Amino acid sequence: MREAVGAPNVLGGLDLEGYLDPYAFGEGAPFRPSAAVIPASVEEIQRVLTAARQHQLPLWTVSRGRNYGYGGAAPRVSGSVVLDLHRMNRILEVDQELGYVLVEPGVSFLDMHAHLRANKHRLVLSVPDIGWGSLIGNALERGFGYAAHGEHIAFSCGLEVVLADGSVVRTGMGAVPGGTAWHLYRGGCGPALEGLFQQSSLGIVTKMGFWLMPQPENVVVCMVKAPRRDDLGALVDAIRPLLMDGTVQTKAVIGNATIVASMMGERAAWFAGDGPMPASAVRSMMADLEVGWWNARFALYGPTSLTTARLDVVRAAVAAVPDLVLDVRSYPGDVNPEMVHPADRAQLGIPSTDLVRMAAWQGGEPAHTDISLVCPATAADTMRQLDLIQSTVETAGFDYAGGFTLDARAAIALALLSFDRKDERQRERVRDAVGNVIVAAAAAGYAPYRSHLAFMDRIADTYGFNEHALRSVQVTLKDALDPEGLLSPGKQGIWPTSSAPAVSTRQ
Amino acid sequence: MREAVGAPNVLGGLDLEGYLDPYAFGEGAPFRPSAAVIPASVEEIQRVLTAARQHQLPLWTVSRGRNYGYGGAAPRVSGSVVLDLHRMNRILEVDQELGYVLVEPGVSFLDMHAHLRANKHRLVLSVPDIGWGSLIGNALERGFGYAAHGEHIAFSCGLEVVLADGSVVRTGMGAVPGGTAWHLYRGGCGPALEGLFQQSSLGIVTKMGFWLMPQPENVVVCMVKAPRRDDLGALVDAIRPLLMDGTVQTKAVIGNATIVASMMGERAAWFAGDGPMPASAVRSMMADLEVGWWNARFALYGPTSLTTARLDVVRAAVAAVPDLVLDVRSYPGDVNPEMVHPADRAQLGIPSTDLVRMAAWQGGEPAHTDISLVCPATAADTMRQLDLIQSTVETAGFDYAGGFTLDARAAIALALLSFDRKDERQRERVRDAVGNVIVAAAAAGYAPYRSHLAFMDRIADTYGFNEHALRSVQVTLKDALDPEGLLSPGKQGIWPTSSAPAVSTRQ
Repeated sequence: MREAVGAPNVLGGLDLEGYLDPYAFGEGAPFRPSAAVIPASVEEIQRVLTAARQHQLPLWTVSRGRNYGYGGAAPRVSGSVVLDLHRMNRILEVDQELGYVLVEPGVSFLDMHAHLRANKHRLVLSVPDIGWGSLIGNALERGFGYAAHGEHIAFSCGLEVVLADGSVVRTGMGAVPGGTAWHLYRGGCGPALEGLFQQSSLGIVTKMGFWLMPQPENVVVCMVKAPRRDDLGALVDAIRPLLMDGTVQTKAVIGNATIVASMMGERAAWFAGDGPMPASAVRSMMADLEVGWWNARFALYGPTSLTTARLDVVRAAVAAVPDLVLDVRSYPGDVNPEMVHPADRAQLGIPSTDLVRMAAWQGGEPAHTDISLVCPATAADTMRQLDLIQSTVETAGFDYAGGFTLDARAAIALALLSFDRKDERQRERVRDAVGNVIVAAAAAGYAPYRSHLAFMDRIADTYGFNEHALRSVQVTLKDALDPEGLLSPGKQGIWPTSSAPAVSTRQ
Repeated sequence: MREAVGAPNVLGGLDLEGYLDPYAFGEGAPFRPSAAVIPASVEEIQRVLTAARQHQLPLWTVSRGRNYGYGGAAPRVSGSVVLDLHRMNRILEVDQELGYVLVEPGVSFLDMHAHLRANKHRLVLSVPDIGWGSLIGNALERGFGYAAHGEHIAFSCGLEVVLADGSVVRTGMGAVPGGTAWHLYRGGCGPALEGLFQQSSLGIVTKMGFWLMPQPENVVVCMVKAPRRDDLGALVDAIRPLLMDGTVQTKAVIGNATIVASMMGERAAWFAGDGPMPASAVRSMMADLEVGWWNARFALYGPTSLTTARLDVVRAAVAAVPDLVLDVRSYPGDVNPEMVHPADRAQLGIPSTDLVRMAAWQGGEPAHTDISLVCPATAADTMRQLDLIQSTVETAGFDYAGGFTLDARAAIALALLSFDRKDERQRERVRDAVGNVIVAAAAAGYAPYRSHLAFMDRIADTYGFNEHALRSVQVTLKDALDPEGLLSPGKQGIWPTSSAPAVSTRQ
């Protein structure tokens, strides 16, 4: 490995702290790598693959490894070598006219935004809650953001991938030598391979194109507050049609008062007792912060004439539901980021790391994991999700800090489980709560779209239609493209038939 | 096979006429099946697969087989048994609230539209030029339409697929037993498999969900005319920003005067000589039909307040370019299809078969094939495509009847080659012209997104980056999922390593 990437770029022993699960809640210390290698190029990746094959060492690929709530850079299989791509951080193309960028896996949302500003590009990036992660890593894990183009994988176009055998494949129009449309058209000749590399152990993505929105003349950020827990259904039904016909161009992110509060401080300011915060404390928190029980946020973009017309439609939809309150803030598209209200940054495509503080809600040493269930974007389904998640979380003694990210047809039901990572009882209760939600949700026909390392097998088990036919195909593909099972074994519950023998896998 | 599907649903001999290439232009009569089987269910498909395996007979799957310009229902490998899915034509779900439908492969655009109208659903289907084809077949081949949601595969969600071994797989959230989000959320657990079944021989798609647009209050169809051939670049540059920021919600379809004329009559009305129509004849045709050298069409949807605001933005963009003329027609969203101008039907989601007549441009026995190249949506690239295609087509003695389907970032350069299928010299010239365009385009970095059976191998050859790494992966996947090579061998130039021995394959 040292020959492959240079000795300073191979880490072991005490230098591996950054590759452990930062917010571990399991027993003992699983998910512990034996080393990390940090290549700077495709050629170095190819040399790492040769060494891994020679020594039958499983590699666990991370772009930047910053998704702390789901395991960070830690591998599913202890003993794996983490293949850390953060040094491959070139921004290879920015095309103002055609609205796209081409990047390597080490490029973060913070990097990309800084580059666009420094070079005066008039393009808007969609950014997630915390900007330190990789554009590529986030999209491949099906992460999302809050400006237009918020479903990141849906606005990606054209990959370069290194397969387990070291071959370099360019997908779609990228396979045309000297081609002109690699990052412009999503298709090509024959089956499309891009989806294979989502939540995947089938290859190492080394380049990826993303479509960015041109900077609009005007941005209007809308906030809708609802006073009561049971207003959720009416709120969802009011917003969904606006998403479906494109009046609203972002996802609508709906958070309860507790998750909004966790962006600003710790629970101790309102309640210091054990167990979930009582309703009276929630009410005084709502009053202090001037927030609703539910708080929905979304945005409108375009020439001012068009955002004005869009806003009129939004106003009418909100006014039709009793007790909903709409607040709006309007910005010029080229606004100075420092003049933007912190709560509106994501809708303007401005990344930050402010929300790292959300993990500190519970006090102690901040840690969190998340519950992320997919459900239909209806009043009935979101209420059912709320009942299921809130009751499980509160039974485990935690506050329900969560909500929904609403699209036209589906919603992601999210709950943030903050805990003190030094508190073993809290860790246990978090683990049990997440496990219980998975079981209860599956029985009702809902499943998570991603998860912490510790739950990957259990979640894959819930995708079991027709005697696990989907997983059977995924394993067939795994065995075909990586017959020795060297790449990220166990990722998303997919285990190669022939696991690398240097480590025991299903630990 | 008769045991599998019932004797009346197995065709052979003279009954196979509907399974020959309807507009064949090759030498002799290649692409000739030995039989056709017409299953009515997944179970019957499974029995057909068992029989095919037992007798090592390759199957060529078609949904409805109506893409006549690219070979219709004819198989790539002569001797194949056509697996014709048109009897599987159930509309399984229509969800007004969440805006989706679930269909089987036999459902045509005409069927779907009739069903929506008969049941008073307020949902708009995107339809292609001719409505007799299959929603599923069209989307899987990456076909497109002209209402909102025009990139059909991009608005599909959730597949059921029968693999070569007979196993039935549901993708994404469809793998959750009793799941609620199969056709609502495009993701799931692990790698996404949907793309594998595009332009594919890897499985037989038996169900597929599609997202439909809710019926808007108002639809405005815009037509922009440009007087001269060399206005193309300015036209593209005027429209592209409107597509990129979502002001315009459809693709813009740009056709020259000749292709517009071919929708209405035969060339003999303006020119009866050999070789391409001279400029003077084109000019009198433009005057007769009141069309431009270029004619762009697109649409705006929404509440009237919003379409009005969108139209103002369009007007300003068109007015900024000298000599462009904008015409608009406004319709209520629930307009009676019979009150819609025939040229606007596709933008309103109303399918028809009127454009079958385009194949009759050349006179004689109507036939056509198409050239479909992907290029960047820029002035320079579209002009380069125009030069390349027009000169090749005219050198071959045909009229250039074509244009571009413009998206925000990419365009498809299209040319319709109409010919008299009884005229051997015309057939030869068509074949040579298409072959010459493929070679010249590849040298300039452009490639077709689909093609007639006769060109699949040659086109696959142009996707040759890194010693054909993409095709190597596609063949690896083919061998893994269909080790006997029974499903559609040769489709899109992908040949199984072990071809079914009952027929010689590369003929």
